[in-house]
Parts: sequence; structure tokens; C-alpha cells
Amino acid sequence: MAGIKDVARRAGVGVGTVSRALNGSGYISEETRKKILEAAKALDYQPNELAKNLSRNKTDFIGIMMPNLEHPFFASLLKYMELELYRYGYKCMVCSTDQIDHREQEFIDMLKRNVMDGIIACVDAPNEEALEIGRPVVSVERRWGEGIPMVYSDHEMGGRMAAEALLNAGCRKVLHFSSQGKNPPFEKRHTVFRTLMREHGVEVIEVEGEWNHMDYAYDREITRRYMLRHLEVDGVFASDVQAFGCMAAALEAGIRIPEKLKIVGYDGTEITRMTYPALTCVCQDLPGLAKAGVQTMVTLLEGEPSPADQVIPVSLQTGGTV
Amino acid sequence: MAGIKDVARRAGVGVGTVSRALNGSGYISEETRKKILEAAKALDYQPNELAKNLSRNKTDFIGIMMPNLEHPFFASLLKYMELELYRYGYKCMVCSTDQIDHREQEFIDMLKRNVMDGIIACVDAPNEEALEIGRPVVSVERRWGEGIPMVYSDHEMGGRMAAEALLNAGCRKVLHFSSQGKNPPFEKRHTVFRTLMREHGVEVIEVEGEWNHMDYAYDREITRRYMLRHLEVDGVFASDVQAFGCMAAALEAGIRIPEKLKIVGYDGTEITRMTYPALTCVCQDLPGLAKAGVQTMVTLLEGEPSPADQVIPVSLQTGGTV
Repeated sequence: MAGIKDVARRAGVGVGTVSRALNGSGYISEETRKKILEAAKALDYQPNELAKNLSRNKTDFIGIMMPNLEHPFFASLLKYMELELYRYGYKCMVCSTDQIDHREQEFIDMLKRNVMDGIIACVDAPNEEALEIGRPVVSVERRWGEGIPMVYSDHEMGGRMAAEALLNAGCRKVLHFSSQGKNPPFEKRHTVFRTLMREHGVEVIEVEGEWNHMDYAYDREITRRYMLRHLEVDGVFASDVQAFGCMAAALEAGIRIPEKLKIVGYDGTEITRMTYPALTCVCQDLPGLAKAGVQTMVTLLEGEPSPADQVIPVSLQTGGTV
Repeated sequence: MAGIKDVARRAGVGVGTVSRALNGSGYISEETRKKILEAAKALDYQPNELAKNLSRNKTDFIGIMMPNLEHPFFASLLKYMELELYRYGYKCMVCSTDQIDHREQEFIDMLKRNVMDGIIACVDAPNEEALEIGRPVVSVERRWGEGIPMVYSDHEMGGRMAAEALLNAGCRKVLHFSSQGKNPPFEKRHTVFRTLMREHGVEVIEVEGEWNHMDYAYDREITRRYMLRHLEVDGVFASDVQAFGCMAAALEAGIRIPEKLKIVGYDGTEITRMTYPALTCVCQDLPGLAKAGVQTMVTLLEGEPSPADQVIPVSLQTGGTV
């Protein structure tokens, strides 16, 4: 591969002149610059970015930490974040945390060693020290901790929309899937849902799944187990993937949807629109979350003060399950 | 943040000694090493990895190029590849190519500039020059070109399994979704399927989608359009996502599955097991593809000769759609 010396030789100038021409630093005549650019192009010269990174102490890499890259919510969020980072000239490093211990800590250590310029975290902080990194961190759909800006959906509105959809349909006894966690922003959807159901005298059977245990097989297993145990319910509120699990278990047991059982999903991922009936669900604005998360990161990278938390509106998708 | 000078001062030694102790190079007494490690720990010292990368001319980053990070096949493949790369100590950079021109070329240029040590490509090479990079490239489920090792599923077997499932069920007229492309390895599933159908006198209506156009909305649109136009068929062969699109359109039109219409999907992603009936489909071994792809990359990074192409077995999932 051609090096800077080859370019200098071909252009008939010194190495320092090539460096100035390619970095756009210092004076250089238009004619010489043109000669150097032509030589670099002819030799397919690529500057070693590692040297540039070291001199800038910056890589333009942003790390994205997610519990699971395959889960439809996170896969879509990653797609939109990667595209958004690209618009700002940043490259995207990913790290999935749910199958290996200590990965959050290792990723944070990489940030400290300057491997990345910042981290967008869709996972919890592993410990108190993670709040003291002194480098840009943005929390999307999780609560990293004090002083770390957050971007999340309007889950209060989401919980209300789900409750109203089931209440308006006349449900009297519902199955509600949630998960315990470190006070994530989406906890609100569960508390609001429970409150509204109680206010209207609707019985709620609670199923609390493991925190951040996001694989399909697990969701299939718990939804099937609880759905078959509670075939008497007339409503379900669960994440998209869990809602499909409930729908499959109910249909298999011969229960008609939506006549006998109404189901409201949460997330609004693409799969909710691939089935018949389509899933009635609360849709998070995935491009909106990605955009706000990346913009917040860019603000921090530019040395601006930490912006206020951003709450992104949700909407109700009317499918055929209510 | 503490620097190497702070560690040297606290340990009462010179900067060079700290560097030798932390890099494990050159002689240093056990006592001094211990003192230095204690000082580094007390100060939470993190070496600047950019300097290390420059001196090694290596980053331990592997780039993964995919058409779309949200598509269930690629999202799962990414999950397994990222975990597998981690096992070997590599970090994962991602790049989705289907919405922006020239991204393949930009990613290749990053490889040339030493930003990454290698690329695992699940997309086509953008041009002939991409074959002459002189850096490690592995093609997974695509054909990058001459001299680039490939890892792909046994699509000949996959096409045969799909054909036999529909033939054994007595289908006489089927809808077959494929896409034109640059001779990707999976083209075999389509050619084998067509051949077997013709041999058995089964009529095949061909729908050729756009190459690498992978979003759900597109699949929903084309499957609905062709399914509603050909409600007379008794069989469908399509990718998982397209199979769901066909199923939804057929159910909406009142066609019973599998009594009147048999559907065989292809890929075997997690969503195929979330519905009732579950999708009968050919399953690609996603962990197996990821493992073989990463191992091939590691072989190239170790300077070994390019390994032979690897063909990963597929299997048939018996759902309730045939």
C-alpha cells in the first residue's frame, strides 16, 4: 500500500508538504496542492487514521450498548441510531450485554481509554462509578443515573393509551406483563396502567418477568405458561413480542381474538404490522428516539452543557386485536 | 483523568518504568511492578489505547456491513457475530448500507486507513477495486468476489426441503418470491426449487422483488399485492417476513391455512415461532453462520492462507402452515 513518502516522491515535494496539503494546514500553493492530490489519487494513498486519531485524541466512534441486538425494538433502534450517527460523521460500535457479565464495565473502560468518544446506553449503569467517567454518556430508554441526560418515550401517555383501549373495549379482568428493573423510564407505563385499571374496578393479574431477559424463547415460554393458566381473562397488556406469545397461546386454546380476548401490545415494532389481525399496540417513535439520542450525544461532544431530558410522544396503532 | 506521569509520580519511578510495567516489556522488579500497579489502580489510570493502536498498527475492530440492521435475519446474525467476535477479543463496528449510496466504499476506505483490522461483508462488493484491498475480508451470505472466502448456508438443500414440503402436501400451483441479485449464494435455493417444481409438473408463479430492498413495509406491500392477485394458488415459498405477509393477506381474504394454502418460509428467524400457527420454514443456522464467519476472519487476521468456502447445513422447522 502506498505511503506518504511515495506520494511525496511522485509529486516531487517533501513529506511535510504532503502532510500540509492533505491536512489543509499551513500555506501551500494551489498548483502544488493539485499535484499532491493527483499523486495521492494515482497511488490510492490512504492516510493512517490511527495517527490522526492519536493527534486529535478523538476517534469519531460512538459506542452503543444494548441488552440484545436481535430483539425487534433494539434492532430497529440500532438501525435508526446508526443512520443518524452517520449523518453527523460518527461511526457506530455495538456491544450487547445480556449474555455476558461485565460487558458494560469493559465498554466503559474502552471509553476511558479513548477508544470511543462517547456512549449511548440502552442498558443500566453497572455501578456508581459509571456516573463519574467524565466522558459523554447518553441514556436512551434507561436511567443511567444522576447527571446523565435521558431520552425516552412518553410512557405515561403510553400506559394511559393501553388502559383506555382495554377499558373502552369493556375488559374486566386482564393479564399484565411487566418486568422488575432499576426504575427504568418505561416503568411509568405499568404504574399508570395499573392505576387506571384499579380506578375502573378491573382486576389485573400481574406477571413480572426477569429484568432485561429479552430473548424470544423466554417470552414465548412465560406468555404461554401464564396465558394457558388464565384463559378466563378478557384482556392482555404486554410488549409486542409477548403479545404475540399470548395471541399464539390463546388461538391454540381456541380462544377467538378479539371477540373473547383483547390484546394491546407495546413498542409498535414492524412485526406488529405483518400479521392478520395486525396487533393493536402503543407505538414508540423509534426514529424519533434515535434522533434525539444522537443529537443529545452530539451536544455533549461539542462541550455544551448536558441538555434536559427529552420525552418523545407515542401513538396508538389500531390493529385488529381489540 | 490521571495520566502516565501521575502514575510515575505516585509510584516514585520514571515514566519509562511505568510504560514497561504496564506493557509487560523489558525487565522490572516484582516489587516495582506491584508499586506501579497499585498507583495505577489508586488513580484509576487508563492507558490511551490510541497510542497503543498506532504502535501496533492494529485496532482489534472488525467492521460488519449489512444491508439492514432491523431485518430479523441480519439482526440475529449481528447478535451472534458480535458475541463471537467478543470471544476472540474483537470489537464490532457496524454499517448498514441499504439506505445510503457509497457506504460500502466509505467502509472499505476506513479499512484501508487502518480504522479496522478486517471486514465481514453481508453485502455485495461495490466495484472491482474492492477485491484488491489487500486486507482481510470475509463474505457471509453474499459473494464479494474472486479470492474472498465465503460462508453461507446450504441453500441447495434448503431449496430442496422447501420444494419437497410443498410437493408432499400435494401443491399444484405455487407463488414463489425471489429477488434478482449479483449471483448470491442463496440464489441456489430458488433454482433448485424451480427445477424440482418443474420436474413434478407444478406451475410456479414468479415474483421477483428488488435486490436488497429489505424493509418490512416493502415486503408487506409486494406480498399483499401478489397474494391478492393469485388467490387461486395452493402454495407459497418466500422468506420468513414475506411468508408472514402472504399469510396475513390470505387470512384477510378468508383463505384457510394450511387447508387451502400451504406456506413455507425461509430463514427460520425467531418470529416464525411466535405465531399460531407457527411458520413451517427452512431454518438457516444463524449461530453456525456467525461462528464460521468470525473464525474465517480470525484465520485471515493471523496471516493464514484464505480458507475454503464453508457451507453450513440447514434444517426444516415443522410448523402449522403446511
